[in-house]
Amino acid sequence: MRKTCRHLADGREVIYYDILPAPERRAQDTRDLDPRPTSAELRHDPVLGAWVMYGSSRQDRTYLPAREECPLCPTRFGQETEIPEREYQVAVFENRFPALSSSTGGTVGTPPGGQGLLEWSRSAGRCEVVCYTDDHDATFAELGPERVDLVLSALADRTTELSEMKAVEQVFCFENRGREIGVTQAHPHGQIYAYPFVAPRTEKMLASAQDYRSRHGANLFDDLVKAEGLDGRRVVISTEHWTAFVPFAARWPYELHCYPNARVPDLASLGPAPRSELPAVLLDIFGRFARLFEVPAPYIAGWHQAPVRRGRDELALHLEMFTSRRANDKLKFLAGSESGLDAFANDILPETAAARLREVGQAPGVPRV
Amino acid sequence: MRKTCRHLADGREVIYYDILPAPERRAQDTRDLDPRPTSAELRHDPVLGAWVMYGSSRQDRTYLPAREECPLCPTRFGQETEIPEREYQVAVFENRFPALSSSTGGTVGTPPGGQGLLEWSRSAGRCEVVCYTDDHDATFAELGPERVDLVLSALADRTTELSEMKAVEQVFCFENRGREIGVTQAHPHGQIYAYPFVAPRTEKMLASAQDYRSRHGANLFDDLVKAEGLDGRRVVISTEHWTAFVPFAARWPYELHCYPNARVPDLASLGPAPRSELPAVLLDIFGRFARLFEVPAPYIAGWHQAPVRRGRDELALHLEMFTSRRANDKLKFLAGSESGLDAFANDILPETAAARLREVGQAPGVPRV
Repeated sequence: MRKTCRHLADGREVIYYDILPAPERRAQDTRDLDPRPTSAELRHDPVLGAWVMYGSSRQDRTYLPAREECPLCPTRFGQETEIPEREYQVAVFENRFPALSSSTGGTVGTPPGGQGLLEWSRSAGRCEVVCYTDDHDATFAELGPERVDLVLSALADRTTELSEMKAVEQVFCFENRGREIGVTQAHPHGQIYAYPFVAPRTEKMLASAQDYRSRHGANLFDDLVKAEGLDGRRVVISTEHWTAFVPFAARWPYELHCYPNARVPDLASLGPAPRSELPAVLLDIFGRFARLFEVPAPYIAGWHQAPVRRGRDELALHLEMFTSRRANDKLKFLAGSESGLDAFANDILPETAAARLREVGQAPGVPRV
Repeated sequence: MRKTCRHLADGREVIYYDILPAPERRAQDTRDLDPRPTSAELRHDPVLGAWVMYGSSRQDRTYLPAREECPLCPTRFGQETEIPEREYQVAVFENRFPALSSSTGGTVGTPPGGQGLLEWSRSAGRCEVVCYTDDHDATFAELGPERVDLVLSALADRTTELSEMKAVEQVFCFENRGREIGVTQAHPHGQIYAYPFVAPRTEKMLASAQDYRSRHGANLFDDLVKAEGLDGRRVVISTEHWTAFVPFAARWPYELHCYPNARVPDLASLGPAPRSELPAVLLDIFGRFARLFEVPAPYIAGWHQAPVRRGRDELALHLEMFTSRRANDKLKFLAGSESGLDAFANDILPETAAARLREVGQAPGVPRV
């Protein structure tokens, strides 16, 4: 794999990941871009104990652009995009409309001072866009194992590099897919948020793991994967190195969690054997979601990774993927109970969801796992 | 106010709240209804420390019925509905497709036994529907102060009565409004969930309040309302007994929190002075949300109340209302960062949202507060 770092006209980084042979990545961004936004800030909610990100430039971000104006396509026919090259394999660039930004300098991560009721900080951290392919019409499920392997190498490399940034406490790699759930770009891509704090959900996971450790002397995630495997009713994929199951208390109509059988803290820490099996496992998972309904389901898929400086002995790398579609013509929305109190109601029993995910089977042409 | 309790054909309760004069509520439900669903269950998520509700009958619940088949309209012209009377003021009935149900008996609330990894319970608790008016085309913002007063009396009475049920740990009164956010019934109505557990968000609020108490010897919510009032930049409504502000770290494009100036644990505990001022305050708030955009914004509004048996000295009654609309043609969706990690990004600064909510002013015909 070859990695090439370049800069866009406004100073943002663009990074190409290539399997050789591939042309050298020397194209210049000649656009006349506005300076990067400098107004990002973070505020602390004292009731929920959580930081909220404000990137006020985002309100005007590109929204479902016409196909010929897609900023994630390669630069072609005089149409300059975020990616100056005329073709690419995998390209990562800093988001032009970031929720987090280190461009203003500033620090964060100090506990709220004084009474901490109206505590804020200049933003820090980084938001990146990961383009999986220069084919505007592809989806992750259609990439093929070699390209998925390259995407995973890019995610692992980004995790390592972003974890080394002084302000970064946690790196989250995820993909939102589907206009129904608000995705603003159709081009197949994922995103990376490098947060200057440990996210609320991760804090909760760490607290649960610490509590479990103190009560049972074992790791929560190890025992959970074991328990789901022994029960078996919700297991959808089981290979030498990976287990994917609908969790016993799933919140979403169709939700799948995928763990390596040997726990590691993040993508960069995966050993060669589980790492080499992963592209086929992921293509299997994404293919199942694509075939659940008459049209491919919208989804959110995210890699939970241990924070950079804490909980690395407890938090287990895993993928959580779900769709909010509950029937061909119906979505699940987060209403009062979910949005107001985090109390989820789910219309589909996890065993029913798992049976359906097993039933839609493997994609044709995908290597068996 | 007169309260009349009756039963529907399948045994569910329907309760009428009337300002006299009003006809006696004697109409019978003569429909041939299926027995009430008995399959509801609760499951415990050991990673997030939260119960998830499964009401499998809900998958087939009534979805945007034609206007003439609205089950929340009064029974008229031979069309039998959930409300047997030919007209009503405020009517409450048990949800036919509940996320929580006590019909199967069963208990809950015991901490997970054993390793607690695959812990479940038969459901308990209750879900109710609160019809604000028999006018299918009205909205809460258009009810008028007398009807809002009656709705509030119904909510307070339901809170008291549901809190006395053995299995109930917390009562949440809320309204979802707008097809854009998945509301399945257009008729103006709210809902009440009486949970057999303390909801995750409430647990977090209580933990924050306890932590604040131990560090500052004061109540978190008291100090927060004071701090927002002193700062003033996000205050939208300030009356003798109520303060409504956009929180300093708001998660949603337009979000308003409304507290009584003297803290109480729940709606039933409000003193006569703040209680009598509340209808005008609420109509002011709901009117502002109705005028934020070219068409009334979809919203979720919920009354946070102290749990039945814990935290009553700390958790402050307050309304939280928000819309996911961020522009006339755009909604905010919960994408990877929010859905995966509870890390919110908000495109609109709270001071900007507050200025806009002040600007859209009071509704014509609404008493000044």
